[in-house]
Amino acid sequence: MIINMNEGATEDEIQHVIERVREAGFQAHVTRGTERCIVAAVGSGGKRHELEALAAAGGVAEVVPIAQPFKLVSRQVKPHRSVIEVGDVKIGDGSFAVIAGPCSVESRQQIFSTAQAVKAAGARLLRGGAYKPRTSPYDFQGLGVEALRLLSEVRKQVGLPVVTEVMSTEDAELIAEHADMLQVGARNMQNFALLRRLATVSKPVLLKRGPSATVKEWLLAAEYLLAGGNPKVVLCERGIKTFETETRNTLDLAAVALARELSHLPVMVDPSHGTGRRTLIAPTSRAAAALGADGIIVEVHPCPERALSDGAQSLDFRGFRDLMQSLAEPMRAVSIPQLRMDKAAAKS
Amino acid sequence: MIINMNEGATEDEIQHVIERVREAGFQAHVTRGTERCIVAAVGSGGKRHELEALAAAGGVAEVVPIAQPFKLVSRQVKPHRSVIEVGDVKIGDGSFAVIAGPCSVESRQQIFSTAQAVKAAGARLLRGGAYKPRTSPYDFQGLGVEALRLLSEVRKQVGLPVVTEVMSTEDAELIAEHADMLQVGARNMQNFALLRRLATVSKPVLLKRGPSATVKEWLLAAEYLLAGGNPKVVLCERGIKTFETETRNTLDLAAVALARELSHLPVMVDPSHGTGRRTLIAPTSRAAAALGADGIIVEVHPCPERALSDGAQSLDFRGFRDLMQSLAEPMRAVSIPQLRMDKAAAKS
Amino acid sequence: MIINMNEGATEDEIQHVIERVREAGFQAHVTRGTERCIVAAVGSGGKRHELEALAAAGGVAEVVPIAQPFKLVSRQVKPHRSVIEVGDVKIGDGSFAVIAGPCSVESRQQIFSTAQAVKAAGARLLRGGAYKPRTSPYDFQGLGVEALRLLSEVRKQVGLPVVTEVMSTEDAELIAEHADMLQVGARNMQNFALLRRLATVSKPVLLKRGPSATVKEWLLAAEYLLAGGNPKVVLCERGIKTFETETRNTLDLAAVALARELSHLPVMVDPSHGTGRRTLIAPTSRAAAALGADGIIVEVHPCPERALSDGAQSLDFRGFRDLMQSLAEPMRAVSIPQLRMDKAAAKS
Amino acid sequence: MIINMNEGATEDEIQHVIERVREAGFQAHVTRGTERCIVAAVGSGGKRHELEALAAAGGVAEVVPIAQPFKLVSRQVKPHRSVIEVGDVKIGDGSFAVIAGPCSVESRQQIFSTAQAVKAAGARLLRGGAYKPRTSPYDFQGLGVEALRLLSEVRKQVGLPVVTEVMSTEDAELIAEHADMLQVGARNMQNFALLRRLATVSKPVLLKRGPSATVKEWLLAAEYLLAGGNPKVVLCERGIKTFETETRNTLDLAAVALARELSHLPVMVDPSHGTGRRTLIAPTSRAAAALGADGIIVEVHPCPERALSDGAQSLDFRGFRDLMQSLAEPMRAVSIPQLRMDKAAAKS
Repeated sequence: MIINMNEGATEDEIQHVIERVREAGFQAHVTRGTERCIVAAVGSGGKRHELEALAAAGGVAEVVPIAQPFKLVSRQVKPHRSVIEVGDVKIGDGSFAVIAGPCSVESRQQIFSTAQAVKAAGARLLRGGAYKPRTSPYDFQGLGVEALRLLSEVRKQVGLPVVTEVMSTEDAELIAEHADMLQVGARNMQNFALLRRLATVSKPVLLKRGPSATVKEWLLAAEYLLAGGNPKVVLCERGIKTFETETRNTLDLAAVALARELSHLPVMVDPSHGTGRRTLIAPTSRAAAALGADGIIVEVHPCPERALSDGAQSLDFRGFRDLMQSLAEPMRAVSIPQLRMDKAAAKS
Repeated sequence: MIINMNEGATEDEIQHVIERVREAGFQAHVTRGTERCIVAAVGSGGKRHELEALAAAGGVAEVVPIAQPFKLVSRQVKPHRSVIEVGDVKIGDGSFAVIAGPCSVESRQQIFSTAQAVKAAGARLLRGGAYKPRTSPYDFQGLGVEALRLLSEVRKQVGLPVVTEVMSTEDAELIAEHADMLQVGARNMQNFALLRRLATVSKPVLLKRGPSATVKEWLLAAEYLLAGGNPKVVLCERGIKTFETETRNTLDLAAVALARELSHLPVMVDPSHGTGRRTLIAPTSRAAAALGADGIIVEVHPCPERALSDGAQSLDFRGFRDLMQSLAEPMRAVSIPQLRMDKAAAKS
Repeated sequence: MIINMNEGATEDEIQHVIERVREAGFQAHVTRGTERCIVAAVGSGGKRHELEALAAAGGVAEVVPIAQPFKLVSRQVKPHRSVIEVGDVKIGDGSFAVIAGPCSVESRQQIFSTAQAVKAAGARLLRGGAYKPRTSPYDFQGLGVEALRLLSEVRKQVGLPVVTEVMSTEDAELIAEHADMLQVGARNMQNFALLRRLATVSKPVLLKRGPSATVKEWLLAAEYLLAGGNPKVVLCERGIKTFETETRNTLDLAAVALARELSHLPVMVDPSHGTGRRTLIAPTSRAAAALGADGIIVEVHPCPERALSDGAQSLDFRGFRDLMQSLAEPMRAVSIPQLRMDKAAAKS
Repeated sequence: MIINMNEGATEDEIQHVIERVREAGFQAHVTRGTERCIVAAVGSGGKRHELEALAAAGGVAEVVPIAQPFKLVSRQVKPHRSVIEVGDVKIGDGSFAVIAGPCSVESRQQIFSTAQAVKAAGARLLRGGAYKPRTSPYDFQGLGVEALRLLSEVRKQVGLPVVTEVMSTEDAELIAEHADMLQVGARNMQNFALLRRLATVSKPVLLKRGPSATVKEWLLAAEYLLAGGNPKVVLCERGIKTFETETRNTLDLAAVALARELSHLPVMVDPSHGTGRRTLIAPTSRAAAALGADGIIVEVHPCPERALSDGAQSLDFRGFRDLMQSLAEPMRAVSIPQLRMDKAAAKS
């Protein structure tokens, strides 16, 4: 931490800060400039929050953190990329994993036909919502337990591991029994009670980035899971909220590359929520592959215009097959230069 | 809803949309322009989500909602302003309620001295966090049950109703026993499991606006509480996330006026989180009063530079007394013109 | 400047940075932490940009500026507030200046009737666009020279100083002849060629904040004017662009208080563009007054629904009279506590 | 346009709106719902702004535009993609054009060595700033005319067409003499005086998206150029301003795909400004290629840590060679599926 003093800070104020730094368990290195004085707190065993609170001390302009606040998710702690197993599928091993399925599980017929279609087209995992976070209380909230049972069945019969969202600590156990991977939705990224609960389940977690979360906040949310005992975390960029209204969200693909640079965890992309427009799903999926993302999660529905949720951004079966075809070549082309670049980036 | 067709939509596509509108339980009124065709879905008993899903039908450019999506929170449903009682304090009755206290309850000494100081200066309610949502798992997470007990005690002895945050459905009951008002933090505004749980408690709820929530999404979050059976809701604007980095958030005061125009619920302002800078708390609090807000919630700590959380934005006792003094006149001045303006706004 | 080295920075890389800091004309103070090394560049005569470019040097994590980048606009350079004279009206002297008038000058009848109406209601200056920045080339672009002549006439006959926008360096001279104050529109805030040109005219400038400009960037735009020789600058907050769509922009009132804290220049507020909704103009104007803003600029039109631009956010004459009445009391109430608070803020 | 009436709108207010719609030259189609009345203005010869101003009429809730506001840039007007020639280089013909060079021209040695190095590595055009838009008046502002002369020379000797920025109408002619393509910087995207001036030059224009411009506003800025007589426009996405602080801007790659869907103009990407981090340039460039962008513009400097501007985001010669290598495969792979997807997108 660096404590940056005001231009007019008095000698007493400076001494007070120096004392507080020492009380907090750090060494204080003082640099006196022509206009300002800077106090650097050096050491690693002290109490960080006591330094942060110095922002409230007299004569202090600001307290600037120097080190990254996350540890276990960091590539500095674990330089090699993590590979997360979901059922028999590996995410983060250099392949490009495709998760596909409907926004919500609506009926046996709907989820079975979708599972078969996406598997045939090359998807490796099935998504399907049982509990849906909906902006309005009057919108369809998911079939709940009934959907979980359908997902269990379809998993066995079709043979795709299943990803579904957990919205509440109370549902975590039940969902963990039925699903292979638990999704934390964007609006729950900083639901810390939920994160702490999911840190104790044995299933991997797909952690979506919040619509207004910085990359650091996203990695710190993942840190809750790792610090709590669950290292099986896959990050998922799904668009942030900006002033642009033509797309549902602004898909932040650079953040995917950045998260992979800062963390060893796999990073996937959700082009369906990320753009909200069917025509943009294929180009952004190709971009995700070329960028080095570890896969995508895509909404597919037998008849999008009859979907109970997210119809406008869902692909039909044919659209999904076209997507998979258009991805084939970028996925292959990218593997080699990607690895080369990653090494270069790591060195620089 | 209006279904806006593409310029090149075929007659078949238009007829298909018309049929679907009727299937969904609405009448279809068709307007054929020189370039485009518009289908208006008229009626109120039909299934809205089936219209929304038409965004995925062939030839459809977009589906534009016409009516506001919220009902029970709306001033159209209940034109008179709601007054919410918290203990013996009324919020929304035309007075300007001040909630004050530390970010976190840290010790008996800290919470008692703060309660006494803020009461003496004119605060009507006490805030204090027992469970803290923290971006990093390594930051202070609150004293939990111990803090709840201290809050109960201080309430009895000092005589201020107590507001504290609920982060998890599992804690709701316990917290409702100890506190007079339950706060939903900004990051949990769309934690729908939590909202559904708080809809069933008998205590009033202070619902903070999410850092990336539109006013509509905020009102829909409140709608979850009212629709679930709890009409005692106070809204609280606490700043949204924008590109500006000099302030912690961007306090959206116009949204306070807008929320009061659209809804009958009281609306308060949190200038501490809203700005993150002590020097901006007084001016924005005065602005909130002048605008017609129903009150403010302010962080106060005996010694901000020793606070375990949010020290940089906390006022000390003297700063809080100065704030209350500077608010005295705007609060008085505003009452009359405010009511006049509100009537004018309601008419227009 | 602080040069923050990577955790893995080599001794050679650290020495290289130290040398470069010295070459740039600064002293280098090195602090070696347990994990990282920090190099502080001390002194004031050196070349800042050479330090900034060190972000590209090997082993450097980031270069963090310590001092504020603006000088002449800063309260540290000039602690007393500036008072700017526009014709015979003073802005920044503690009074609350109201500028009112139509978005665009449309006809003699329109501008004369508006000038008389706003003067009668208490406005001190007249606004009216001659050259209009319009998002679409097909929208009304202003009457140009004809509008300037009408503004000159109305100024003489009605007796209100006139504010109008300059969009191009080429028009600056002509407009400076006809108007008392030149407005730089939000979209031109970083049109540096225009700023450099306006630094050489003798008329005061109303500098609107850009829709995505931070407070620092806004103050640096003002610095262009002062550094170029024109100290007569009034800042104007007019809303920033965020994800909120219910209001045209998000009016950042905290930024007004912050700009007044950081700079000695007067700061006004544009509630018309800032909110884009007529019903929000009065409450946000009252808030601006209570906050300590130096005035407002408001759009008024004889018949908003026939306006050639910005009708939806314009007040009619009656609406403007109501606004002025509702402002009377907050304006009076605020003067005393405001001064008290400003002193307190300056001390802290 | 659709004029959406309030729920409580009176019959008189509805009739008034209908009359005004007719006065404006449109037919009025009225749809009366159970709660609201909607008036659709049908026709194409009428005055759009008169409809827009109806937002200010009594009883009107909002005026919703239906048709896109841009014409000449639209793919509906010109379905085939435009190919823009810059010197002997074609942009938009299916190849992936790379523009490279320093942020600012600093010296003969610097610009010549860079031109040679980027040409050898495969760049097709040279960038180099002569007039620099800088946030602070104290930063390096470019060498001006001297830089233009160096660019002319290097163009002849090295044989790369030259792209440079125009900041002022007054410089347009001179720059058009020396450069092959004129760049409008992000902060000038809505400098309409400049756009009108550049509509009359014979050289192609590279139009950067503003940091807070929506895709529609960007296309409307291009519409100024086309409507004014210059059809040679290349769009360039360079990142928008969001709350994320780890990257300089948020590169909106979906907007690139969207702009190509809505418009026939070529769309390039600036990963240097778009991310502000050297390590993110290669992955986002690969993503741009895979997405179907028409090329990239990249900052390259012989010694980034000595650059007078933008050093932190500039590649050195070796970094640029690595970038070009890592792009080779994605560029090839993308061509076929890209065309297939574009057809599919155009149909849907």
